[in-house]
Amino acid sequence: MIRIQLLQSQIVEPAGLKGQYYEQRPQNKLEWFKNNGWGYRDTKFILEQDGGVRLTGNKYRFSNQKMMKFKEWAEQKVGIDLSLNCEAQNEIPGDPPIINEQFMNAIKGQFNEISFDNGQRILHSHGHTMQEIYELRHGKLARIVDCVVFINSHAQAELLVKLAMEYNVMLTVYGGGTNVTWALQCPKEERRMIVSVDTSRMNHIRWVDRKNMTALVETGVTGKDLEKELSRYGVVCGHEPDSVEFSTLGGWISTRASGMKKNRYGNIEDIILSVKVVTPTGTLSQSLDYPRVSSGPDLNQIVLGSEGTIGIITEAVIKIKAQPEVCKYESILFHNFALGTEFMYKLSRSRVWPASVRLVDNNQFQFGMALKTMPHSKREEFMDKVKKYFITQYMQYDPDQMCLVTVVFEGTKQEVEFQEKKVFELAKFYKGFRAGAENGERGYFLTYMIAYLRDFAMQFQFIAESFETAVGWKNVPAVCENIQRRIVEECSKRGVEKEPFVSFRISQVYDTGATIYVYFGFGYKGIEDPVKCYSEIEDAAREEIMKNGGSISHHHGVGKLRKQFMQRQIGDTGVEILRRIKQQIDPKNIFGNQNLI
Amino acid sequence: MIRIQLLQSQIVEPAGLKGQYYEQRPQNKLEWFKNNGWGYRDTKFILEQDGGVRLTGNKYRFSNQKMMKFKEWAEQKVGIDLSLNCEAQNEIPGDPPIINEQFMNAIKGQFNEISFDNGQRILHSHGHTMQEIYELRHGKLARIVDCVVFINSHAQAELLVKLAMEYNVMLTVYGGGTNVTWALQCPKEERRMIVSVDTSRMNHIRWVDRKNMTALVETGVTGKDLEKELSRYGVVCGHEPDSVEFSTLGGWISTRASGMKKNRYGNIEDIILSVKVVTPTGTLSQSLDYPRVSSGPDLNQIVLGSEGTIGIITEAVIKIKAQPEVCKYESILFHNFALGTEFMYKLSRSRVWPASVRLVDNNQFQFGMALKTMPHSKREEFMDKVKKYFITQYMQYDPDQMCLVTVVFEGTKQEVEFQEKKVFELAKFYKGFRAGAENGERGYFLTYMIAYLRDFAMQFQFIAESFETAVGWKNVPAVCENIQRRIVEECSKRGVEKEPFVSFRISQVYDTGATIYVYFGFGYKGIEDPVKCYSEIEDAAREEIMKNGGSISHHHGVGKLRKQFMQRQIGDTGVEILRRIKQQIDPKNIFGNQNLI
Repeated sequence: MIRIQLLQSQIVEPAGLKGQYYEQRPQNKLEWFKNNGWGYRDTKFILEQDGGVRLTGNKYRFSNQKMMKFKEWAEQKVGIDLSLNCEAQNEIPGDPPIINEQFMNAIKGQFNEISFDNGQRILHSHGHTMQEIYELRHGKLARIVDCVVFINSHAQAELLVKLAMEYNVMLTVYGGGTNVTWALQCPKEERRMIVSVDTSRMNHIRWVDRKNMTALVETGVTGKDLEKELSRYGVVCGHEPDSVEFSTLGGWISTRASGMKKNRYGNIEDIILSVKVVTPTGTLSQSLDYPRVSSGPDLNQIVLGSEGTIGIITEAVIKIKAQPEVCKYESILFHNFALGTEFMYKLSRSRVWPASVRLVDNNQFQFGMALKTMPHSKREEFMDKVKKYFITQYMQYDPDQMCLVTVVFEGTKQEVEFQEKKVFELAKFYKGFRAGAENGERGYFLTYMIAYLRDFAMQFQFIAESFETAVGWKNVPAVCENIQRRIVEECSKRGVEKEPFVSFRISQVYDTGATIYVYFGFGYKGIEDPVKCYSEIEDAAREEIMKNGGSISHHHGVGKLRKQFMQRQIGDTGVEILRRIKQQIDPKNIFGNQNLI
Repeated sequence: MIRIQLLQSQIVEPAGLKGQYYEQRPQNKLEWFKNNGWGYRDTKFILEQDGGVRLTGNKYRFSNQKMMKFKEWAEQKVGIDLSLNCEAQNEIPGDPPIINEQFMNAIKGQFNEISFDNGQRILHSHGHTMQEIYELRHGKLARIVDCVVFINSHAQAELLVKLAMEYNVMLTVYGGGTNVTWALQCPKEERRMIVSVDTSRMNHIRWVDRKNMTALVETGVTGKDLEKELSRYGVVCGHEPDSVEFSTLGGWISTRASGMKKNRYGNIEDIILSVKVVTPTGTLSQSLDYPRVSSGPDLNQIVLGSEGTIGIITEAVIKIKAQPEVCKYESILFHNFALGTEFMYKLSRSRVWPASVRLVDNNQFQFGMALKTMPHSKREEFMDKVKKYFITQYMQYDPDQMCLVTVVFEGTKQEVEFQEKKVFELAKFYKGFRAGAENGERGYFLTYMIAYLRDFAMQFQFIAESFETAVGWKNVPAVCENIQRRIVEECSKRGVEKEPFVSFRISQVYDTGATIYVYFGFGYKGIEDPVKCYSEIEDAAREEIMKNGGSISHHHGVGKLRKQFMQRQIGDTGVEILRRIKQQIDPKNIFGNQNLI
């Protein structure tokens, strides 16, 4: 008989959260999140009299510090005319709710929080595409949810779905509302009552198992809160999308999200072991807390990427890891994007991947430089000048060509040493120059600032968006070149005054390819319908992407924004199969957000 | 404008294969593969007059070498009574075929090879569960396919499915026929004509892209042929299940297969980028040669694990890797299974994983020793004795407790050095003793020999099988202990004379758990219905597994063997969703093998 004594199981049942938030955020999201833009209410970029730009509030490391180079960069490199003005409207209009009386009677007393407040209804009816933000600032959302119900448990989710089925009410699920695919946009023609199911109270971490390194987590938890709670047990989930402060586990699952440090922690499909979802056909609850299973088609994978079309995802078993011993930023300068790309490709082939490694093009590099806060001392100012001289004059980097690779190393001391050695060896081969931790950190900070900057730019009649794709290595050049070319053509065709701002980042490496992330924006002065103009250009860019071997999306998903490309991506039979699966799971189309197909 | 010059694309279109096989195997599988057992016809274990055991033929490294310790081990440790005899029948009976005349007229002239040969029909109607082999040796398969059609292209697959739909013929797909779940077993009550679709002629590698590191491969290719062909281009797929000599890419996809070196190359879901499958609803063909995509639910994952229930998988884009610079075996002795398990657990936590690392229990360790061929010289014989003395007397390893971890290191020189250092450091902490490459290699050789040994044992009224599970780390002890206990109980209850042979191996590590692989066998002398007896015991063992947190299967799959456990594994809603998906994709149940649910 085998007798084995492994270490005692270490299951922890955290007491924290259970509907509360860290940072003592008020329960009412509109008290701390903007109603017509990204992020914290107290945080925005403002242009000051002396031409400096400052990030207000106190939420970020660089908050309240003056950035003197920003104005020049915005005007000269991006083409933002800071003399223009375009304020947002004070009130956002919304139509009166459609009420299903029978349904309202049935839910009476069953849920702690139900809201018909206009502000809440609007908040729960949009994501963060440029089009939606523009509508919030200057127009009106064509259709908004009629009511918001806040759930705090799986049982409440089941009840709500049951009643929605019974009284034919449409449900739409709200996590962090950070999607950029019109996923939350309500179908204009929907005449049933639309109820938004807010999951943010359902954010408890039910258990943490430090033997198996798994945790059971409710899907309403935001990334930031999740990591704060897990850190109390010395563990980490490690999923860090740019929206991590606000997006939720449920949202990540619904969209097949990807995080900055996927090299170490995996993408969402690697992190999830099993999901629980309330569908109109019943609750899908598999006993699947196994590392890996062969039990037929993987139903988790129907839920992953379902984008709110089949049910309310209530909880998931996720993998966790020990907090890394070492965590450090680094950066490497390359003479140009071509060399940087070669480096990224060879790094992918070496399979020695830091937790995060990204290549930003010259535009984005200069963007990072523009976000530099003022030096705190004459010495710092002097050192900046010396470094600049050294790089441009001595090392002969062309300031209008040079690019930056930003790196995050995480792991044990030995692991990190091993990775550093390989990375810098390879960088040297491509004439890379180590540019230090601060540049690396600033590169990552930039990505958290982008959405705030987009809001800032909108004040000056400048609209911008990001989009992304995954593509095999050999198509990386063609995709970048053709996106650039096509955007410039389309802007010119439509009478956009100045040359558009287009910037590329290789934001993830894989064995067989890379993720390309694009920022694109233009000043719309003189353009009659800026949103329409923008949308057409973005669609044209996606055309180029797909023509040149890029995917419909790497991680943003499809929503309604990219539905028209689905047939090309998955074929007629694929679309038909998805349609039938949806129809089988949700025959009355209760989850009628019309995402995907 | 960005100008990037990456290395020229390196796409190769191999001329090889296209229906031919390496080793000049005859087209007729029955000329080189056994008709009632595992593997090559010329390869079997035989007991010789002098008590030695020899593997006939010339296919393996240890072929034709005498093993003197085998007899003693088999009799004393396993309980095989080598005085008994139980020859297989000479002819395997088969019922006349059911012919659908209209269908036969429709396919006339459309396919190069169609067979009504009894031997071919039987071959295409079974896998390699003990029950099926027993039936082949002593009984009759209740229902066999009526006809075998050999396809050699995607177009032929489409034609066959179209005609099957038109004339209501059941199709069953045959790759290597190595499943161990009754997947190929024809439903007894099936009255439609059953056609086996043999994919082995559809084995071409269509292109190899050494820039993206992908390849397009037809699904009829066996693992061995695939690697041989890829090696000509300096690349490797790296998927190495124990059945790699005979199983096919299509089979791996259908069953969610796992390979020995998944730590380096991934399991099948990590290797596949996209699949093409002919279903009754149409051909699912997604443009998905991207490293990673968010385009809704991942339809690849409906095909992976579909176990032949939805269509004919014809081709797939797979990832390939450069051939490793270094490839070496190693092994480490541990005093007992508990210490070995602790080591495996800690290794999983360190995340420094060799390409393969396995822990075998004492039973399997002694099994490996029994397969040692005779020393080739007196010096070798002497060294064996010295080593044995050293291990047992000096290092004080108990020969009836000690276990072995077998390792394969693959990678660059630096990678392997790094892994070796970590692995041996950790081993030392658990009092492990480096036992050299030969023991490691023999451990892996054993797994290729198992099925041949099972056939050997059947001659002596001894039946055996393997089964496996995946389980979270903390449940590993409980699963092993309870499997052992329950098997012994159930054998005793049923009058099995001697104590059954039960042996465990931790064959894969994951972040959150492990794969446990079990060999189980007993002598059935005096048992009236040995197959029924065996099945009941195996079901009881699976009960214990699931009760103690183990999965329905790690990689063998479900087939018909484990259908009764599906509801427990994926829940009622899960079963219902699978049922509806099947019904939607294949409404006439053309792919009527009745696997999964």
